[in-house]
Amino acid sequence: MSLVVMKFGGSSVADADSVKRVARRIVETKKAGNDVCVVVSAMGDTTDDLIDLAQQISPLPPLREMDMLLTAGERISMAVMAMAIANLGFTAQSFTGSQAGIITDEQHGKARILDVTPGRVRAAMDGGHIAIVAGFQGVSHASKNITTLGRGGSDTTAVALAAALHADVCEIYSDVDGVFTADPRIVPTARKIDRISSEEMLEMAANGAKILMLRCVEYARRYDLPIHVRSSFSPKEGTLVIDTPEGEAVEASLISGVAHDRSEAKITVVGVPDHPGKAAEIFEALSQAGVNIDMIVQNVSTVQTGLTDISFTLPKTDGPTAAQFLGRVQDRVGFASLQYDDQIGKLSLIGAGMKSNPGVSATFFKALADAGINIEMISTSEIRISVITRDDQLDDAVRSVHTAFGLDSSSGEAVVYGGTGR
Amino acid sequence: MSLVVMKFGGSSVADADSVKRVARRIVETKKAGNDVCVVVSAMGDTTDDLIDLAQQISPLPPLREMDMLLTAGERISMAVMAMAIANLGFTAQSFTGSQAGIITDEQHGKARILDVTPGRVRAAMDGGHIAIVAGFQGVSHASKNITTLGRGGSDTTAVALAAALHADVCEIYSDVDGVFTADPRIVPTARKIDRISSEEMLEMAANGAKILMLRCVEYARRYDLPIHVRSSFSPKEGTLVIDTPEGEAVEASLISGVAHDRSEAKITVVGVPDHPGKAAEIFEALSQAGVNIDMIVQNVSTVQTGLTDISFTLPKTDGPTAAQFLGRVQDRVGFASLQYDDQIGKLSLIGAGMKSNPGVSATFFKALADAGINIEMISTSEIRISVITRDDQLDDAVRSVHTAFGLDSSSGEAVVYGGTGR
Repeated sequence: MSLVVMKFGGSSVADADSVKRVARRIVETKKAGNDVCVVVSAMGDTTDDLIDLAQQISPLPPLREMDMLLTAGERISMAVMAMAIANLGFTAQSFTGSQAGIITDEQHGKARILDVTPGRVRAAMDGGHIAIVAGFQGVSHASKNITTLGRGGSDTTAVALAAALHADVCEIYSDVDGVFTADPRIVPTARKIDRISSEEMLEMAANGAKILMLRCVEYARRYDLPIHVRSSFSPKEGTLVIDTPEGEAVEASLISGVAHDRSEAKITVVGVPDHPGKAAEIFEALSQAGVNIDMIVQNVSTVQTGLTDISFTLPKTDGPTAAQFLGRVQDRVGFASLQYDDQIGKLSLIGAGMKSNPGVSATFFKALADAGINIEMISTSEIRISVITRDDQLDDAVRSVHTAFGLDSSSGEAVVYGGTGR
Repeated sequence: MSLVVMKFGGSSVADADSVKRVARRIVETKKAGNDVCVVVSAMGDTTDDLIDLAQQISPLPPLREMDMLLTAGERISMAVMAMAIANLGFTAQSFTGSQAGIITDEQHGKARILDVTPGRVRAAMDGGHIAIVAGFQGVSHASKNITTLGRGGSDTTAVALAAALHADVCEIYSDVDGVFTADPRIVPTARKIDRISSEEMLEMAANGAKILMLRCVEYARRYDLPIHVRSSFSPKEGTLVIDTPEGEAVEASLISGVAHDRSEAKITVVGVPDHPGKAAEIFEALSQAGVNIDMIVQNVSTVQTGLTDISFTLPKTDGPTAAQFLGRVQDRVGFASLQYDDQIGKLSLIGAGMKSNPGVSATFFKALADAGINIEMISTSEIRISVITRDDQLDDAVRSVHTAFGLDSSSGEAVVYGGTGR
């Protein structure tokens, strides 16, 4: 007998019919002889509706109360899910984040999980019930206030519970079939990935693949927990995010996929005196602003002027804050001006096989060159190459790279490089 | 400094504007130097919407999950109320029933309060905050499940909290100005009662006055807690439900008011053998059915047949259950048939002064006779006379009795009987 944690997002439980459909799915898993713990998000637009209501009341609602308000959403979906399961002749018990032992810190709106003590969930399953847990929410360790986990919170709840319950797998259900080699809306020939390592999935998530939040993949990786990304609309197997023992690495593909991201902007700090410590002053200011910097490029300074330009990318939403904090240190750092550019796109090629395949970058840059794509910035990790392009060239770039690495579903086997691949 | 518990019903917090209006009212009470604890119901139609959702999912939802679902309603209203108060520059902290220490038994949907441990509410007020508590809900003592208190639950929460906090007064806000001498929709000349004893209020509530639930009046009486029934739409004083020391009884009116009730039906058990124990068998069966019997009348049996009829009144909603349980004992008891009549109305005249005023019943029955009302059943307590009439005669009966006892607002002083009244 296995223990399965199943997580269903808001689109999977958008209305009464969806809830009933998902309930049948859950009951099938239970019937197959598994212990089942289900994590649900709020139904459809519930969270947005609650945010609207709050904004009608106050332009700046207290975060503690915002969390109290928003957690009503999962409370509703978990209760009706338990009802739908009961209606199929199985018993279910729903638990709030607090009841399920999701213990967090005190940061309302973006709490981090400190501990998971799922005694009541365990007892419910031991009693033959299906346990339903509210995603996205917990209770703070010190003050016992209701907290929410922020973006991707329900996935994190599911993975954290699965880890604490020593589940065999955490199934994350959404309206897509799994993780694809590229976004199918851009690359219609993109293939579903059957199996991917957590390291690769981390790079995919960190670089724009929206199917799983970075945070939940990190959590699963730390606890060595397999995640199964699949569709609630189809019985097909999805994508298994799993780390195999070293010896099985030969099974892995050279390249997993191509991720893209349109959520970043580029800031260029123009005319920075080329003295030691100036870059540090700039990034110290940004760090104080709590801005997450992604890629950084510094031009070679000209001997004549002794000045250089420093460019970096950051989430578009952090743009105003970054500009404000840089403005405060402008006189001290002595830079001339700031340029803000949000018409950029980022493309990332991800594959564990890159480590031992020097030919990958050559193929990558040739594909971009052949497609006439201008590269503005480059960054790499052991298993990833990322480039910044113009926003309006990003789709072409993704298609071109996807094809060059033989990822298109019509092209059969993936291309093998340098002879050391599969 | 006083401690005031303020309870607002669903109609007082129907939408964002209502919530803001009520928030201003709460802040005024706080500004006046009081410690303030607020109990809120769910906003407007929220509870009905949640019930609709549940019925789309399952015809017979588990009660535990129904409670989990419905408690989302107050969670929303308490959070937005706290936001609205924060927006006025005061701080508020919201608490679920569980967090506020409303400890109940395990009866989902109609839990009874076993204990109130309002440590967090007390601490919030001591910290200068306005405490907002979700009405209608609690947490069960043994299994720590979320429970709801059933009809009138939010009033009960307010009174129970007020008692546990040793509040000076529990203010129950609704959309009417207070308790009236009769329902103003039937008797336009009905007067607001300024002050009423808990004993009289109990009789009013038990006999159809909907403004306060019986249960909450009983609770307040047990703890000697004054209730102030008032309107959230007006700053006017409402009705104070308060017991004065014996010596002040002379202040009380002879008659408090006329209550009416259309929620009952009458069942007549026809042809019951007139032997000792037969009535006991009938009411034993009804007791097992959990049916609340109100008035009972037994005809004189005729010598010829040795049979009698027994009539009783009960809530219309209990009619089918009562008929079913009586059917099961029909052969054993040996009665002939059942008659069900839901076209009845009940009128009750209530006043503490009745105890020492024998003239009251004469005036009462004369008023009904003058109005041509046929009386079908009669029951009395020390401070109440109730009669059953035809449903379509009830309004006339109420108006006639109201006038006869000088309760109309245009008629000045109340009539004095037997010389021993005020």
